Amino acid sequence: MADQKHVVIVGAGFGGVHLAKELAKENVQITLVDRHNYHLFQPLLYQVSTAVLSASEIAYPTRAFFRNNNNVNFFMAKATGVDQGRRVLLTDHGEISYDYLVLAAGGTTNFFGNESVARNSYGMKTLQEAIALRGHIVHEFERASKKTDPSHTEERLRHLNFVIVGGGATGIEMAGAIVELIDVFKKEFHTIDFSEVHVTLLEAMGSVLPMVPPDLQQHTIDVLRKKGVDVRLNTAVTAYDGNDLVLKDGEIIPTKTVIWAAGVRAQDFIKDCGGEVDRAGRVIVEENLLVKGSDCVFAIGDCANFQHGTERPLPTVAPVATQEAMQVKTNIMALIAGKTPDQLGKFVYHDLGAMATIGRGEAVMNGPMPVLGFNIKASGFFAWFAWMLVHLIRLAGRYADFTVSVKWIWNFFFGTRLARIIHSKLE
Amino acid sequence: MADQKHVVIVGAGFGGVHLAKELAKENVQITLVDRHNYHLFQPLLYQVSTAVLSASEIAYPTRAFFRNNNNVNFFMAKATGVDQGRRVLLTDHGEISYDYLVLAAGGTTNFFGNESVARNSYGMKTLQEAIALRGHIVHEFERASKKTDPSHTEERLRHLNFVIVGGGATGIEMAGAIVELIDVFKKEFHTIDFSEVHVTLLEAMGSVLPMVPPDLQQHTIDVLRKKGVDVRLNTAVTAYDGNDLVLKDGEIIPTKTVIWAAGVRAQDFIKDCGGEVDRAGRVIVEENLLVKGSDCVFAIGDCANFQHGTERPLPTVAPVATQEAMQVKTNIMALIAGKTPDQLGKFVYHDLGAMATIGRGEAVMNGPMPVLGFNIKASGFFAWFAWMLVHLIRLAGRYADFTVSVKWIWNFFFGTRLARIIHSKLE
Repeated sequence: MADQKHVVIVGAGFGGVHLAKELAKENVQITLVDRHNYHLFQPLLYQVSTAVLSASEIAYPTRAFFRNNNNVNFFMAKATGVDQGRRVLLTDHGEISYDYLVLAAGGTTNFFGNESVARNSYGMKTLQEAIALRGHIVHEFERASKKTDPSHTEERLRHLNFVIVGGGATGIEMAGAIVELIDVFKKEFHTIDFSEVHVTLLEAMGSVLPMVPPDLQQHTIDVLRKKGVDVRLNTAVTAYDGNDLVLKDGEIIPTKTVIWAAGVRAQDFIKDCGGEVDRAGRVIVEENLLVKGSDCVFAIGDCANFQHGTERPLPTVAPVATQEAMQVKTNIMALIAGKTPDQLGKFVYHDLGAMATIGRGEAVMNGPMPVLGFNIKASGFFAWFAWMLVHLIRLAGRYADFTVSVKWIWNFFFGTRLARIIHSKLE
Repeated sequence: MADQKHVVIVGAGFGGVHLAKELAKENVQITLVDRHNYHLFQPLLYQVSTAVLSASEIAYPTRAFFRNNNNVNFFMAKATGVDQGRRVLLTDHGEISYDYLVLAAGGTTNFFGNESVARNSYGMKTLQEAIALRGHIVHEFERASKKTDPSHTEERLRHLNFVIVGGGATGIEMAGAIVELIDVFKKEFHTIDFSEVHVTLLEAMGSVLPMVPPDLQQHTIDVLRKKGVDVRLNTAVTAYDGNDLVLKDGEIIPTKTVIWAAGVRAQDFIKDCGGEVDRAGRVIVEENLLVKGSDCVFAIGDCANFQHGTERPLPTVAPVATQEAMQVKTNIMALIAGKTPDQLGKFVYHDLGAMATIGRGEAVMNGPMPVLGFNIKASGFFAWFAWMLVHLIRLAGRYADFTVSVKWIWNFFFGTRLARIIHSKLE
């Protein structure tokens, strides 16, 4: 046991948990560090924000993955940096020495330095944000329902105006889900005139969903518009004070709710890990996934910038992180076996395609589907069904929690939302 | 419509919702006021504290009860008092005029004026408390797991010491559930020595569960002790600073966790409703459930003191509230029909018996069971099965949420707890 190497992994997301699970089979000691005690099934976070699922259905206690792995130790702490000279990870609960370190810390919302927006809008990355957003949306309807007097019309409209910024998968899925949540409210807020409720999706570029072909992009926009979402392209945001959202062309949208789904960047401490970072704070990695300039610190997933043979860095999606995890495992075992960094295997990403749901019964999917053995492009109910199947299988494989399946199917048939609880205190 | 009477109900608990549902069938206008947007299934709150169920499984959006009742308006606000002279309910969102008012505001934790205990221990009455307690318990294990050094032993033991105060149903159920939660942790905290973990139940009186006969009380104590709970009777608490719990005899129990299940009192504003209140802040009601001295303000459930022909005020349990609700409905309709207060029907409580679970597969029950037609006294698996059945039926009737059943059965067979999420930020 004394000669066991110690691998420290920062982050219990898709990449970190997968890597720890794989390394647990080997004769190494593993410490998995995360500031939360749970692993988050990030792709479904928007369903917590819109009351489809409750928090514990997409958040799984990290320790539960490692019940039978005595060589895995979980350490709940916030990483603050790396001292590569002394080979220690710095955390708010002290230092942790490592032989090999893997940064798998994931991402956070990128407000691109816009402080007024950062302060007043809702991000879509953490469970806390999702729970707060869910409470806020419900609360806005409660507030509007009290302002029935004609003199309150301006205020009431502001409460009933919901703006989503960003036309990527997260923004699209959020827009679709919020429309369905409003359909539930229609049955329950007897005194609200629902023609006063507005959902707007703003996208700075010329189209939505950059990862699918133009016809699917247009289909997505058509479906959202049919659902009543005001989709506005080429529309950038400049400021938001919590009451008025200012667009680049000077237009003002009065709203109490701005949901920011327009960008991802690495956690702050990544810049303090001794590597070189890009504009989004991600650390540059070599083809073997070692942090540039290091011989024992790796980085994977949303906090790593891997750009070798591709036009842009690899996208911030789960398959990139889990595939990188497998390569890092191979490379760490090779280093332990005596190989040198230049002898390590190079990472090659296998694109699994992209899919996004636009609400109940509607989705788009595109890309090589290695499971099926051919290229596929689809929309509508079939794509939605495939989306649901893929996510249920992934969730089930992870948590063996079939109450989620039950709730999804229930929700599909009855369109109800039972998680509409305002946790926060009444203002 | 103009001559419709306006009934205002304060509180969306068992009594308030039941009454609103019943009155909705009549030609009256109803406003239901609550500071939360959900109805809480209070008897299972301890299951949220111990991660068996998640919040949204026992909290149901109040508006959802009244989808088909256009004469019921929900108003989310905190009641602050009543001006009986002007016939208005005072709230933090303005005044509401009423023809008839029903106080059904429920109860809150009674710390009996002990401020140090109130400040530092966890109550068992609100969803916020339950979520905070759940996070705290898990967090204490995380903290203990980091303090492996022998010099930290005292601190570590303090983290691993859990004290429940109060031997009523809530305290008993909490003690049983926390022991089972610890069983789950045994599989996951590989570095903790579980002989260092202690659960203590303190009761100021000479026995637990006052509502069941002595042999069932003793059975309950025996079962808890067999599960490893240190049950201590005739033990009163005098102070708690968040680190050391001081007992009446001067003994000090070092602990970071005191769970207070030792008393219930009415919400503060009840004393400002123009009636006479008892020591627990409950308003005294006449036999017809009118607040003493009033001809149009009623009170039911945990905030009312009904003591007519009984030795003590009726207990603070759901059947009292719902039965009172039925009587109040009858009496309000009688007043509308022109009857005078002295002509109203008198409330008679039908005792449905008592039951409490002591953990998976163990419970005690006692009392007249009108459904079964005979008196019953039972313990062990049968009582537990009956307990589960009664609660599942009540929950299902209320929410039609069968995911709870699924989770319970799952939990029963596999003993797992999937809701162990620490919501709060890491300290």
